[in-house]
Amino acid sequence: MSVPIAILGPTGYTGLELIEILARHPGMHAAYLGTARDTQPRIDSEFPRLAGRLGQTLAQCEKIDHDEIARRAKLAFLCLPHEAAMKHTPALLSRGVKVVDLSAAYRIKDANIYAKAYAHAHTDPAGLAVAVYGLPEFARDSVRDCTLCANPGCYPTAAALGIVPLLREGLVNAASVIINAASGVSGAGREPKAHTTLVEAGENFSTYSIGTHRHQPEMAQSLTTFGGHGLRGRPCLPLFVPHLLPIERGILATIYAIPASGDVTTDAVMTALHNAFANEPFVRVRDAAPTLHDVQRTNMCHVNARVVDGRIVVVSAIDNLTKGASGQAVQNANLMLGRDEAEGLI
Amino acid sequence: MSVPIAILGPTGYTGLELIEILARHPGMHAAYLGTARDTQPRIDSEFPRLAGRLGQTLAQCEKIDHDEIARRAKLAFLCLPHEAAMKHTPALLSRGVKVVDLSAAYRIKDANIYAKAYAHAHTDPAGLAVAVYGLPEFARDSVRDCTLCANPGCYPTAAALGIVPLLREGLVNAASVIINAASGVSGAGREPKAHTTLVEAGENFSTYSIGTHRHQPEMAQSLTTFGGHGLRGRPCLPLFVPHLLPIERGILATIYAIPASGDVTTDAVMTALHNAFANEPFVRVRDAAPTLHDVQRTNMCHVNARVVDGRIVVVSAIDNLTKGASGQAVQNANLMLGRDEAEGLI
Amino acid sequence: MSVPIAILGPTGYTGLELIEILARHPGMHAAYLGTARDTQPRIDSEFPRLAGRLGQTLAQCEKIDHDEIARRAKLAFLCLPHEAAMKHTPALLSRGVKVVDLSAAYRIKDANIYAKAYAHAHTDPAGLAVAVYGLPEFARDSVRDCTLCANPGCYPTAAALGIVPLLREGLVNAASVIINAASGVSGAGREPKAHTTLVEAGENFSTYSIGTHRHQPEMAQSLTTFGGHGLRGRPCLPLFVPHLLPIERGILATIYAIPASGDVTTDAVMTALHNAFANEPFVRVRDAAPTLHDVQRTNMCHVNARVVDGRIVVVSAIDNLTKGASGQAVQNANLMLGRDEAEGLI
Amino acid sequence: MSVPIAILGPTGYTGLELIEILARHPGMHAAYLGTARDTQPRIDSEFPRLAGRLGQTLAQCEKIDHDEIARRAKLAFLCLPHEAAMKHTPALLSRGVKVVDLSAAYRIKDANIYAKAYAHAHTDPAGLAVAVYGLPEFARDSVRDCTLCANPGCYPTAAALGIVPLLREGLVNAASVIINAASGVSGAGREPKAHTTLVEAGENFSTYSIGTHRHQPEMAQSLTTFGGHGLRGRPCLPLFVPHLLPIERGILATIYAIPASGDVTTDAVMTALHNAFANEPFVRVRDAAPTLHDVQRTNMCHVNARVVDGRIVVVSAIDNLTKGASGQAVQNANLMLGRDEAEGLI
Repeated sequence: MSVPIAILGPTGYTGLELIEILARHPGMHAAYLGTARDTQPRIDSEFPRLAGRLGQTLAQCEKIDHDEIARRAKLAFLCLPHEAAMKHTPALLSRGVKVVDLSAAYRIKDANIYAKAYAHAHTDPAGLAVAVYGLPEFARDSVRDCTLCANPGCYPTAAALGIVPLLREGLVNAASVIINAASGVSGAGREPKAHTTLVEAGENFSTYSIGTHRHQPEMAQSLTTFGGHGLRGRPCLPLFVPHLLPIERGILATIYAIPASGDVTTDAVMTALHNAFANEPFVRVRDAAPTLHDVQRTNMCHVNARVVDGRIVVVSAIDNLTKGASGQAVQNANLMLGRDEAEGLI
Repeated sequence: MSVPIAILGPTGYTGLELIEILARHPGMHAAYLGTARDTQPRIDSEFPRLAGRLGQTLAQCEKIDHDEIARRAKLAFLCLPHEAAMKHTPALLSRGVKVVDLSAAYRIKDANIYAKAYAHAHTDPAGLAVAVYGLPEFARDSVRDCTLCANPGCYPTAAALGIVPLLREGLVNAASVIINAASGVSGAGREPKAHTTLVEAGENFSTYSIGTHRHQPEMAQSLTTFGGHGLRGRPCLPLFVPHLLPIERGILATIYAIPASGDVTTDAVMTALHNAFANEPFVRVRDAAPTLHDVQRTNMCHVNARVVDGRIVVVSAIDNLTKGASGQAVQNANLMLGRDEAEGLI
Repeated sequence: MSVPIAILGPTGYTGLELIEILARHPGMHAAYLGTARDTQPRIDSEFPRLAGRLGQTLAQCEKIDHDEIARRAKLAFLCLPHEAAMKHTPALLSRGVKVVDLSAAYRIKDANIYAKAYAHAHTDPAGLAVAVYGLPEFARDSVRDCTLCANPGCYPTAAALGIVPLLREGLVNAASVIINAASGVSGAGREPKAHTTLVEAGENFSTYSIGTHRHQPEMAQSLTTFGGHGLRGRPCLPLFVPHLLPIERGILATIYAIPASGDVTTDAVMTALHNAFANEPFVRVRDAAPTLHDVQRTNMCHVNARVVDGRIVVVSAIDNLTKGASGQAVQNANLMLGRDEAEGLI
Repeated sequence: MSVPIAILGPTGYTGLELIEILARHPGMHAAYLGTARDTQPRIDSEFPRLAGRLGQTLAQCEKIDHDEIARRAKLAFLCLPHEAAMKHTPALLSRGVKVVDLSAAYRIKDANIYAKAYAHAHTDPAGLAVAVYGLPEFARDSVRDCTLCANPGCYPTAAALGIVPLLREGLVNAASVIINAASGVSGAGREPKAHTTLVEAGENFSTYSIGTHRHQPEMAQSLTTFGGHGLRGRPCLPLFVPHLLPIERGILATIYAIPASGDVTTDAVMTALHNAFANEPFVRVRDAAPTLHDVQRTNMCHVNARVVDGRIVVVSAIDNLTKGASGQAVQNANLMLGRDEAEGLI
């Protein structure tokens, strides 16, 4: 039996990605597409590439009606602005609908840090208290048991999968971590902006938000939490420097750190990665540094690490719309619904 | 029960596309990857993006051994040079292995025209005699019954799906047809060439082989054969002008023709398309002209037609690697194996 | 002595192109940058790539003040919306400032056709009466003597330079001309639009405005006027089908036509091009079809023509921002100011 | 009087760039194009975009003949393989022809380090002894007086202009420097390679040669030499991690370092940049981090620095073919010929 699912905010890029994944998923289908727009389009008018490929998906977008969603769906993916996510989540949970939230609303446990990073107050402390940060590779069991999953940010996913295994094993000077990363333009959303036109973004490359990006506190929380004993009680507060790539999709994180001691070798860091990810369906430890082509349009993360000239260099690659957003959301939903974690995602 | 399949020539772009399609196909799997290379790589070393995503596919490439293929596979996809296809096809057919050939070897029925276009003699007249040109929209029943399917070229597929319905209904002056089309660089194959580097092909656009491209005789045969009674016994010999787009994949054909009479309206040409494709799983007749984003990485063809300023303009869009090659090959294989035509392709 | 020049509307792409050309021009310099914006930026803040490269150009943008312009400049380039161009042009001409208008305001001689194409009335019939359509290759002497030059559109420039020589010599069935053309995204201007983001326009290709583009009446006028006796008194009303390329800049026009008679050969059409352009500084007749790389960031047009399968195919390539806009504007200004036509442009 | 110049190896991308620069240079012109190819093309056949734009440049390539070069040119640009550069340089110098060598042959002062990095012995120790490393911003007077100029590598240029001013003023922990940089594909040369096709390099991003790139020893020498007293006698051996961008041209270096002390502020690092580059024609210190669009097709370097989260982040942008190769070569030639350093380059 295929599980009926709601997608709220289906007209952005993460919504489109979800719809395409669910159209091929043998165990879930989109039974409700809810939009906050004044008029509700057919989704295959909004995205003509969906025409004739929707499978069981209901094509007509509808207004967001909590009761109706509860009648027709077991779980909802929220691809909404942060504030809207905080408004709809309690209403859905109270009606028994599980939620995977793709916004940042429930990612940062400290509401004050959230408020500072996102420039608005957190309005759902109850939700925040129960939300589980959905990085399955490090929180699988918690995700399985939760009703509200905060789907991680794209950059934090790439960063954590690259460096956490090394932090855990105490191989890294935690104060030295630099997350140098580059993302495709789809990470900026579907709304046109002055710097995302083809003329401005094409054949170009640049840094942005150096040390001030909103994903930094999320990364700090994630690396600190998952780094565990390896950190010996200190937080890991990485320097995060994002770059904008002239491509549609993909994130490559080139992570720099100082080894915890002079004994740390390439073998040691690679072994840490292999140990962490030996049985993971969506992480591949590579002998060579990965490229974005290796992971685009898949839910995979490819990682490689080495020690060179006395420093650790980790390269971690994901697709920002798949493992960095909608693919990971389905991975989390698979867990929350008691299904095989990889179903519909390979 | 999943049907075991062989792929010969898996290390090119059509091979990769086949492997990715079969990895998700519920009714077929790649059980033999045969290469003519001196050393046989694992396919996930050749294409790291396949790592962990191969499902039942055997990862190790092997030498091409006809007996072994016959033992392990029911059908073979040939992604080989034309000459190699003519060598291996009879050996496979004689061992009871059905063949879908993605080369041009069996597309053109007249061996002399073939020899002129491809600059070598046809060496398998017996195969040529039984081969079926696998454009399912116009030859579904023949494909179902065949053992050797000549998978159409990318440009000819886009052209035929755009103009054949109009030819059939006698709406077009058949002598006036111009196939103006543009393809992504993957159409030139995986081998690096001076004009396919990013520096040369990127931010560029050009015509090539004006009126002399090898797909022209294939188009002429296809339009003439499928145009049928609408042509009143005359051939349709289109002018074909290809262009090279600075993108990976996709073909957009902008087709020009003079209406057969002054009575031909936009309604008439659109009705012809709707009549031809009403029940087709892989063709969508669009009210607006399609873009390549509408069809990339799908097996769909999107078409639109209009009469403007006394001329017919048809726009037809496909992905050259999917509907223009590997997707259509699987569509044909589905038919040849008695399966649902759309299985594994939506 | 360098001539002082005004640029009105310097913050768009044609403005930037003009500034870069003038910064290297030995005989002109930008002495006034006038903007309709509420606040006036320094131009090297608006376009950081200009920092340190402005030569004699005054960097500070100013409000548009006709008297001040007249005091400080001999000629003004107008990179403004059509309506604004019709407002400022009479005021500048009356103050003795020559005008090269890069908008469409003065291109179409028939105000009714203009009003229909641009959906607003023409408000400066006096200017329209004296304006010269500035395609120097066919109107050099008129440009030299004019005070108001209507700088041609990008597509019409590529089209006219490709087909006019053949029309003039009566080699073409004028009723059969199809201007199939493709442009880079900069042709859509600097304002972000839903279809011009990198995600939407990148890796994509599409037609637009089939048979309804505003450059069609301009082309019809240009081909008819410059086609002259070769047309035997009939107009040339081409079908125009533009396409959007996933690149920044460049226009490739692939022009189709039926020969006027069966005697027309490739030699004949190439000879017509050579005769027309033998002494032109900015047109090169090529033995092979040109690519966009051959002309990008130059003021050149490369053309090639052939007869194939009973049809004429002309390929014409320009840079839409240079020969299709700002480069041609400087070429016209050189003529209007009595300077060498090619000064500052090679 | 325009100085006649020879270009040896004009058929690669640095050769093309040189020819385009010289065609606009008021004080130099290419009077000899020497190629090692068996047949010598016209340069405007090799690069059709040069047709009609060569000014005084002689279009016909010739064999490399030292005597003839000495007769016809005062200075030669060498765009040849390293070994060829070492063969031709002594022959040219002995005939009184000054040399700007764009290969790596004369960049590294220690022949053993050179041999290890480039995997062949240095065959011209005499040349190596007199060669001047041509980074004018730090070695202007030496360049002015030299006869053999080793034109710096592209990555080392971007790195040195970004970090040397900070090293000089002792603001940086020299052992902590990481040069994280990304280059367009033109840096890989014109020869097609498996990883430089549009299909492989387009829509992609990757690291390569992590810690092992041949430009690392050049950087180490450059930073150590120019860092001077600020280094207190210790070398600066940066970690260098290059990335391949899916674009034609441009290098963005994102440089990380630990401040020399807790007192180092953003003001301090910006002041160091302003002090170093106040009068430089080709370096702009920017308040915001630059993008590649700010510098492409110019000889400019744009730099910005800040202290964030206890670390220094410098962003340095150049065009790899201009300031990173041919533009800097002309800048050096201007100095060596006693001309204005910026002539022909703004």
